[in-house]
Amino acid sequence: MTAYVDRLLLGPGPSNPYPEAVQALGRPVIGHLDPEYLALVAEISDRLRAVFDTANELTLPVSGTGSAGMEACLASLLQPGEKAVVGVNGYFGERLCEVAARGGAEVVRVAAPWGRALDPADLLAAQRTNPDARLLAVVAAETSTGVRNDIAPLAALAETDTLLLVDAVTALGGTELRVDDWKIDACYSASQKCLGAPPGLAPVTLSARAVEVMRSRTVPVRSFYLDLGLLWEYYLAPAPRYHHTASSTMASSLHAGLGVLLAEGKERTWARHAGIGGLLQQELTDRGWGLIADANNRLPQLTATRLPEGLEEAPLRRALLERFGIEVGAGLGEFAGRAWRIGMMGHAARERSVRTLLAAVDELLG
Amino acid sequence: MTAYVDRLLLGPGPSNPYPEAVQALGRPVIGHLDPEYLALVAEISDRLRAVFDTANELTLPVSGTGSAGMEACLASLLQPGEKAVVGVNGYFGERLCEVAARGGAEVVRVAAPWGRALDPADLLAAQRTNPDARLLAVVAAETSTGVRNDIAPLAALAETDTLLLVDAVTALGGTELRVDDWKIDACYSASQKCLGAPPGLAPVTLSARAVEVMRSRTVPVRSFYLDLGLLWEYYLAPAPRYHHTASSTMASSLHAGLGVLLAEGKERTWARHAGIGGLLQQELTDRGWGLIADANNRLPQLTATRLPEGLEEAPLRRALLERFGIEVGAGLGEFAGRAWRIGMMGHAARERSVRTLLAAVDELLG
Repeated sequence: MTAYVDRLLLGPGPSNPYPEAVQALGRPVIGHLDPEYLALVAEISDRLRAVFDTANELTLPVSGTGSAGMEACLASLLQPGEKAVVGVNGYFGERLCEVAARGGAEVVRVAAPWGRALDPADLLAAQRTNPDARLLAVVAAETSTGVRNDIAPLAALAETDTLLLVDAVTALGGTELRVDDWKIDACYSASQKCLGAPPGLAPVTLSARAVEVMRSRTVPVRSFYLDLGLLWEYYLAPAPRYHHTASSTMASSLHAGLGVLLAEGKERTWARHAGIGGLLQQELTDRGWGLIADANNRLPQLTATRLPEGLEEAPLRRALLERFGIEVGAGLGEFAGRAWRIGMMGHAARERSVRTLLAAVDELLG
Repeated sequence: MTAYVDRLLLGPGPSNPYPEAVQALGRPVIGHLDPEYLALVAEISDRLRAVFDTANELTLPVSGTGSAGMEACLASLLQPGEKAVVGVNGYFGERLCEVAARGGAEVVRVAAPWGRALDPADLLAAQRTNPDARLLAVVAAETSTGVRNDIAPLAALAETDTLLLVDAVTALGGTELRVDDWKIDACYSASQKCLGAPPGLAPVTLSARAVEVMRSRTVPVRSFYLDLGLLWEYYLAPAPRYHHTASSTMASSLHAGLGVLLAEGKERTWARHAGIGGLLQQELTDRGWGLIADANNRLPQLTATRLPEGLEEAPLRRALLERFGIEVGAGLGEFAGRAWRIGMMGHAARERSVRTLLAAVDELLG
């Protein structure tokens, strides 16, 4: 039997779920076609609409992690040979390229250095050069660097035939995100970051325009499991059509996490994340730890920090986990071996998390 | 807030999880790269090897439901344009065809009527006619009809270049299944049936020969999320490579469910299912309810039963759910509107489930 460990989860996700979300895991399992399960999903969809700030009908949890949400959107909207403009300034922008390319799309990359935000003007220019692009995809909150990419200016895509697809895995619930106002056509997230539930579900929302694109496909979505059209028929059609055995356990937990978030209020949750992330970043700076994201585009919920010269990150990170049960994440890409990624997300976005982490680090550094 | 309902789950799955599996859901969430999580998955893989009866190294839980397991195997093994021979005698045989075809495979169907078993000789003959077939796929336990398809004779495929792929979603843990002895190259199941955990994970195992086929692909797997090669690198490679944020919550629960199964003993669990399914089928027959599966190929864990003439299935099924909190499944395909599917699986495979169900039906039929 493996050890029973209790972690303070301050990495790039999962974060510690809200107690209400943990408690909901114990609700009795019910069938995936039980009217009570479908009513539960309908409530989850309503709550997700509130959190995504959208009226989109197609708003539902995909039975998989954030990566499944990404693939569901790309696979359902792109047909083989179609063009996707992708903003790349970190690991998850790269993943968007890989998933789109595997699906048979032609990928047009628009890059910025890791740690810097994408320039919306560059993205819009790339679309003007490629007006036949089916979609333009950007990560709102780059989990690999702590950079916030500016989405609002991309609303201009609504005037074109190119859909706007936004990765909100780390963004949703942590920082402002307005699907309808920003004219986002496809957006996905994950249950285990700022939504405060365990991993396992990927909330997805599609605009009416994106649904239209999906419905006018000439070749079926290559994936059966991640076909959002089939999920629509399961969850949202008048007579639900069996698709897969969705988990009432995970659904109950996400439902509860969203309930906590909405009870606190979206804007107040954003403000809490802003305050806690700002505090952490100030404390790190005061101690001589560098911040990777440029000052104008720094996320509060995820901080990538460069360790002071001479400090080895891996042994320190391991000691933090083993002695204190505190998880932080390793740096990725060019920052591997030199940086940490510290999440202050959902239930873990509290001043006590910042103080606990810093006290433990201070103790380890003696 | 939706109603808090507690069901006796006697449909085609999910079944009621073992109490130990429910309790394990409350274990603290840990990160997907935490050494303790990777140790947990290593133990799950060991337990799955015991249940699948295999020494296959690539044995792991996919983060999705049984349908994700199906797609992971088909997508990882088939390249576009390759041939798949598929046995079809029910809904899930049809699904195998659909998933393979969406993935770009050429499907060769070998059909038998719903309610009858596939003849292994027919399947082997189809392979001889199509010796270039990459794989031959069969459902071991057809959840739509309660029919057991005979897998052992298909071990002869080991002498050919065609892989044997077996859907064990309803079979695993409920009836005999021997991956190594029967020379099965790819096999998948689901956590929520005879393994006694909630839905959300799909155990998968690949033989060395199947891994070799996967590694010698010339085009990447179209799906990133369901690429078993990437999952191998995440879970089984010496240095784990991040792939997705797997859920320690679901893993802990599956781990516990498998623990209960193995503590009872595989053969004794099969015997329990055989006894309970036989009892149900005898009682149904005594009451004049028909059994859809032919007598020689009847599953104990899933019984498809034809209601006596004059009985409307839907109102009776609804009353069973609403008045007694007992779920049974509707008939599928040609049996829609005339049949039920009754599961006696995992923790629910007890005499008290049979007696409770029959007493409730008797009460409703007054």
